Order: sequence, then structure tokens, then C-alpha cells
Amino acid sequence: MRIDVLTLFPEMCEGVFGASILGKAREKGLVSLNTVNFREYATNKHNTVDDYPYGGGGGMVLKPDPIFGAVEDVIQKASVEHTEQKEESDTRTPRRPRVILMCPQGETFSQSKAEELSQEDHLIFICGHYEGYDERIREFLVTDELSIGDYVLTGGELPAMVVVDSVVRLLPGVLGNESSAITDSFSTGLLEYPHYTRPAEFRDMKVPDVLLSGHHANVEAWRREQSLRRTIERRPDLLDKVELSDKDRAILQRLKSNNSK
Amino acid sequence: MRIDVLTLFPEMCEGVFGASILGKAREKGLVSLNTVNFREYATNKHNTVDDYPYGGGGGMVLKPDPIFGAVEDVIQKASVEHTEQKEESDTRTPRRPRVILMCPQGETFSQSKAEELSQEDHLIFICGHYEGYDERIREFLVTDELSIGDYVLTGGELPAMVVVDSVVRLLPGVLGNESSAITDSFSTGLLEYPHYTRPAEFRDMKVPDVLLSGHHANVEAWRREQSLRRTIERRPDLLDKVELSDKDRAILQRLKSNNSK
Repeated sequence: MRIDVLTLFPEMCEGVFGASILGKAREKGLVSLNTVNFREYATNKHNTVDDYPYGGGGGMVLKPDPIFGAVEDVIQKASVEHTEQKEESDTRTPRRPRVILMCPQGETFSQSKAEELSQEDHLIFICGHYEGYDERIREFLVTDELSIGDYVLTGGELPAMVVVDSVVRLLPGVLGNESSAITDSFSTGLLEYPHYTRPAEFRDMKVPDVLLSGHHANVEAWRREQSLRRTIERRPDLLDKVELSDKDRAILQRLKSNNSK
Repeated sequence: MRIDVLTLFPEMCEGVFGASILGKAREKGLVSLNTVNFREYATNKHNTVDDYPYGGGGGMVLKPDPIFGAVEDVIQKASVEHTEQKEESDTRTPRRPRVILMCPQGETFSQSKAEELSQEDHLIFICGHYEGYDERIREFLVTDELSIGDYVLTGGELPAMVVVDSVVRLLPGVLGNESSAITDSFSTGLLEYPHYTRPAEFRDMKVPDVLLSGHHANVEAWRREQSLRRTIERRPDLLDKVELSDKDRAILQRLKSNNSK
């Protein structure tokens, strides 16, 4: 997969793209992660990328030409690279790039969207920075608009990095087995049960006896109950989407009646 | 405000904390933004910060002792700094720090949470990285658990930076007027209307005539209608929380009946 992040602040992304799991995925060649400063595509002599809004009002608006120019150049480069690198036996036409605008009006990002994007060949992210976007970018260039949540940020860089991180960790070979197990908090559909590690006693705070018992079935039963308890307490909305056993339902019933006493 | 981010990957945060609005806020002394590598607080000779989970299962679990040690040290340092720096006339006791765990089971972060946190004196973020947390951290050390959305990431660093960014931009003096206006997408409760800037025509894509008309009232009416249209199309849930005028309601009625034709 190739990922290009268009931003006026490439230095914000480099630390994240070079460290830990993303950094290793990049080193292993599992993903090509690039930042592009779209100021280099400004077409006026002062290299400005924003201008006052038509119709008046506060704030500045990102001009269409630098963004169109940067996206088209990146697509062109990816195409040349693909032709140069492909094996003769590879006759597959690469999928058209997804051009993703990070903005508060976008579709709320989710794990299923991460899975969808992880199937693509090329993702291009456009990150504005406390400006608006000229609507023609949205209308004629962009394939997806994404928001990571209902809160206001200073720019699209952190949201783009969040999406990149969640997508890249799904690519084959990126996560080792040891790191994939515990992170998949949403994989059972329930919230995770509590974890404990050594020491068994830390400043009078003890690990629950059942976890030290070595009794496998009791440990499993305790963990399932804790997962159900945490989910019903914190995110009851998740329970609608989970397959529950009769035993699970009995536990939930008991937790509910205890709470209402 | 003082913010400390506890992480095993401080290099992920430095690029973000040094750039753009966060970087300027830091330079101006409006916020003290620090990263702390909690591996420095490991208490064993191999400097390990995680260990196998009691009760078995995959994945590793962050040990309690390095995190407790790091949080306590940071609180101690902040207290010394506060005593050294305060003016004699300042008799206010600083508020107790908020110790925030970034995790998928946490409360979903929102703009109102950002506003709440922006009133604090000291925020401490704990970022795990594809491990679980020993439950005693959650139970005895942490004051808040936050999640930025329902997607899986490789660590808590990006979520912590998202929260930091949304909180710091609310601190007095951080945003200039010019940058605050357009970003507040949620301030009217509706999604933003489309923005346009020069050129008026770009590759046959034109700016709507009304915005070039100079007729202020028509521009306002067009923008309100566009905001309502975008909100009803993309985020109808937001409309329940907005104060609407009779005119707004008439527009929504018309948009709905057009859509159902």
C-alpha cells in the first residue's frame, strides 16, 4: 500500500510515521508512507495556499489549485512507480486511489472503515489546518470525507495519522502475533476484562485470587463475567451487536438485578 | 496549564508538540507540554515495563510499578515548580491533577470533555502501546479513562495528542481571532456551509453566483440553507440539539419533501 499525506506541516507526521509499528512496517517495505507539503504546488508568486472567503466572513479558505496540483502529481508518481516496480507476471491494474479529506463534516471513522481502507492500493489524505476547504476540492477531487469524532482540532494531521495507524496495523505482516492479541478490544464485541501482571501484591493492592489459582475454567468464567460487567456498565449499546450465550444472558440478568437493588 | 504525556515513544509526540499552534502555545508559555518515558521508572534490572498476564492468555500487560512511579514523580515535580514560580499574592491551591488513561474502554471523548479539561491546572496522560494495563493502574491511579472513537490503534499516543490538541486550542491566548472563526464547526450546532475562495473559476468549476453578488442578506440566507442541508443529509442527529427559527424549520421541511419526491 502507498499512503500520501498532504499537509502544510509534514514535520508533525514524521515522528509518528518513523516510530514503533508504523516505523517498522515502513522499514520492512509493507507500506510506503509519504508526506507532501502542498505549499510546493502553490501557483502564485507568494506561495500562498489560502485566501479570503467569497461572500465574506472570518477565517481563511484553502485554495483549490495547490491541492488539485499536489493530488494529481502524487497519483502520477504512484503510477510511474507502479509501472517500474511491477513484475512482468503482474497484470493487475491498481485500484483507483482514495482521496480522503479529513474534516468535521465527514463520516465518523470506525473499525469497519479501517478494514475497508486496508484493502486499497493507494490512500491520499488531505489535511487542512484551521482553515476551510474550497468546496470544489470536496466536490470534484475527494472520494471520502472522514471525521474521527465530535471534537474540534487545530488541523487534519492528527486525524489523518489516526486513520493511517488503524489501517496500517491491519496490513498483512505488520502486527506480530504477540501484539495483535490484546489490542483487539472490539474483536469479541465486548469490552476487555481486567488484566493483571506481576507483582501479585503491589502496595497492598492484590491480584484477584482466581487469576493465581491456575484453574483454567474458573479464570475463563471470571474473565467473561468481567467483560460483560464492564460492557453493561460502560457501553451497553455494544451488547445489541454481540452473540450472547444463555449463560451470558443469565450473568447479565444477575448484574442488572444487583444494580437495581 | 501543565501537561505530561507518559509514553514509551516520546519521539512520536515531539513533532506534534513542537509544530504549528501547539508549538506556538508552548513557546509563548501558555502551556508546559512534556513527555516522560516511563521506562525510566522501571524497578527491575532489565528495565522491563510489561510482563505476562496472570491467568494466561496472549499479549503483554503493563506493570503497575513504573506507571505509579512516573505519575508520582511528575506530580511531585509539578508541585515543586508551582511553589517556586508562584507570586506571593497567589494563595490559590492548584487543582489536583487529572490522570487520564487512553484506552478503548474509556468514555468517548467529546467537545464538552475538552472544555471541561481545559479548566484544569495539570493533565497527565498514560499511553499504553499494544499492551493491556494492569488493572490496579485503572483502579487506584487514574481519574479518567478516555477513548477517541470506536477504532483500534497501535497505542495511546495519537489519542493523547488528539485530546491535548483539542484542549490546548481552548486555552486563553492560544488561538488568534483569525484562526478561531472557521474551525468551530460545532459552535452553531450545524455542519458548516461550503466555503469558496479565488479563483472564481478554476478549470470550469465555478463559485456560486450568490457569493460573488455582494448581496449580504442573500449570502447569509444561502449559507444558512447550505448548513441545514448538509446537516440533514449527513448528521440529522445534530438537529435535535439545535435552536431552529421558524424559517429554518420551513427550509428543512422543503428539503425533506424534495428528497422524498
